[in-house]
Amino acid sequence: MSQRTLPLDRFYSVIPAGGIGSRLWPLSRAEAPKFLHDLTGSGQTLLRDTWDRLAPISGEQRVMVVTGRAHRAAVEEQLPALTDPNVVLESEPRDSTAAIGLAAAILERREPGVIIGSFAADHVIKNVPLFTVAVREAVAAADAGFITTIGIKPTEPAVGFGYIHAGEPLTVAGAPSALLVRSFVEKPDLATAEKYLAGGDHLWNAGMFIARADRLLEEIGRTKPRLLEGLQELAEAWDDPATRGPAVDRIWPNLEKIAIDYSVAEPAAAAGRLAVVPGYFDWDDVGDFASLAKLNSGGRKSDLAILGENARVLADSSSGIVVSQTKRVISLIGVKDIVVVDTPDALLVTTSENAQRVKSVVDALKVTGSTDVL
Amino acid sequence: MSQRTLPLDRFYSVIPAGGIGSRLWPLSRAEAPKFLHDLTGSGQTLLRDTWDRLAPISGEQRVMVVTGRAHRAAVEEQLPALTDPNVVLESEPRDSTAAIGLAAAILERREPGVIIGSFAADHVIKNVPLFTVAVREAVAAADAGFITTIGIKPTEPAVGFGYIHAGEPLTVAGAPSALLVRSFVEKPDLATAEKYLAGGDHLWNAGMFIARADRLLEEIGRTKPRLLEGLQELAEAWDDPATRGPAVDRIWPNLEKIAIDYSVAEPAAAAGRLAVVPGYFDWDDVGDFASLAKLNSGGRKSDLAILGENARVLADSSSGIVVSQTKRVISLIGVKDIVVVDTPDALLVTTSENAQRVKSVVDALKVTGSTDVL
Repeated sequence: MSQRTLPLDRFYSVIPAGGIGSRLWPLSRAEAPKFLHDLTGSGQTLLRDTWDRLAPISGEQRVMVVTGRAHRAAVEEQLPALTDPNVVLESEPRDSTAAIGLAAAILERREPGVIIGSFAADHVIKNVPLFTVAVREAVAAADAGFITTIGIKPTEPAVGFGYIHAGEPLTVAGAPSALLVRSFVEKPDLATAEKYLAGGDHLWNAGMFIARADRLLEEIGRTKPRLLEGLQELAEAWDDPATRGPAVDRIWPNLEKIAIDYSVAEPAAAAGRLAVVPGYFDWDDVGDFASLAKLNSGGRKSDLAILGENARVLADSSSGIVVSQTKRVISLIGVKDIVVVDTPDALLVTTSENAQRVKSVVDALKVTGSTDVL
Repeated sequence: MSQRTLPLDRFYSVIPAGGIGSRLWPLSRAEAPKFLHDLTGSGQTLLRDTWDRLAPISGEQRVMVVTGRAHRAAVEEQLPALTDPNVVLESEPRDSTAAIGLAAAILERREPGVIIGSFAADHVIKNVPLFTVAVREAVAAADAGFITTIGIKPTEPAVGFGYIHAGEPLTVAGAPSALLVRSFVEKPDLATAEKYLAGGDHLWNAGMFIARADRLLEEIGRTKPRLLEGLQELAEAWDDPATRGPAVDRIWPNLEKIAIDYSVAEPAAAAGRLAVVPGYFDWDDVGDFASLAKLNSGGRKSDLAILGENARVLADSSSGIVVSQTKRVISLIGVKDIVVVDTPDALLVTTSENAQRVKSVVDALKVTGSTDVL
């Protein structure tokens, strides 16, 4: 499908802003999910950082946010230039295929031929010019029909990320570094991660997907025809205030919950329809407090990272991270690789090594009925 | 000096209730010193526990408390049976010789021949009947003219306490187990502590002193005649409302600050005038959070001790102690021998191993001007 306009002129940014970030509890929680936090000391939220990266690429009028109803006010406060038609509210979370698929279906109806790029609202990226370069290449590959992802060039043998096994170069104009994807690989063990790093043809899966909306919907339809049908019906009803509400009430709660990795990315990769553009920028999904500590200590393990505007921390022979959301004095003595998260109603004390287990606490709090602090 | 009355009828309990307990910060602090806390889960403060041990021995009318002006209301609330003449208020702390010496001087003027027993307000004692037995023996030894202490029979090679090196038995009626004291020994290293434990003639120094008031004052006068002079002048002015205030203002701030261990106990021991009655009860000075943890976990190192009425603690693979003075949820994951003290305005995170260093934090807070949390 060739079009007169340049591919980048047809590009639309989509930001799914869902997900609480349970492994960052009690910092992230239902009412204050990860994307509404400043996790880098930049002075603004991750959502706003995401906007600031994307708006210059697609234009402010061409950024859509898919989020929960409960977060509407916070999102609009963070993004005053976000226009009303670009706010897509979920009545309840239905996972990423529904969220991104609905955005694709709505935008394709409004503007056939649109190319969408979906980027999480709660990741951290440094060196934005290199990010922009990668997005531009990905848009070109997407215009050629590929479901396209951006894979981050590994800088260390990380075991906390999934990987993309890249293959042969594509030959697509405007996407000189794009490669075909052989497969997606689950989080590896350290030995495997070291092999990946040495080998050079494995990239970190950052969950970024760039595609023509029609192609994305086509891929959803291949594996999940019922889900596609629901999304199309929703899109048809969407832009009429009289029909949107009833359609959402009827269709949304019944959509299958499935991550886009499984409904689209893996099957498309297996069929040779998925491309990857290597990204050479710094990226992190800030998946847990160990990652947050690393991000805020310049990678120096001996340091104590401190987050929080009003933090009053007195540390002696201690390392790790303190997140302070209160004005309390926090005193640490002789605790190494510690994680202390101090919020008005909940306190977490753990270590970097145990950071992945924080989610289990959230589960335990649910079971014990302590939902007031979730 | 033989008297017609029985020695125990002349006994008066003195409770110096000073000392913040800096190594228990931020639980103990200027406005809420250690003796005003329930550190054992008994449901009442250490001060009240102390009263409950002593009042049955001396009678409620014969318990004197020496405390700071700031703590008057709290002390009287804790001890409703404490009579007004038995409240001795310090305008500022002048260490234990001044505090106990003043009590001795006041009581000796009121009741010549009185025997006083001074017991810290913030120690923990279990098995009170055995404590009572030891006090009765000590009173008998005191009546015979000895400055008498109660030394705790060690149950382990503790390095956190000073020791009393006991010598020959006394031959005093009513004090069959009393011994002469050879010397006081500073906190030992572990090897020395193990030798002490095996040898059997070293006892823990619990800072308990029982003596005839006139004898105690005489000992103070031997080493600190100026200090004794000040105490006598104060005592003379004490029971007249017209003279007490001016005397306190003039004399108290100029009294030498010296622990009674140095002004009385060590010199008297060297001169063969100090006796010790071995105590077979459980005793702890709860000197730091490691000791507090041990006290509240039944000695099981793998356990997590939790203090605080409203504590909401969720612990996974963690040991040590949590002190909760807030209603916050406290979650611990994989932290061993941890010390977490959660108060409304200050949080401490350290380990048992570092518990002795907590005092240095208090010093640092003073230096940095964070006096609001001291």
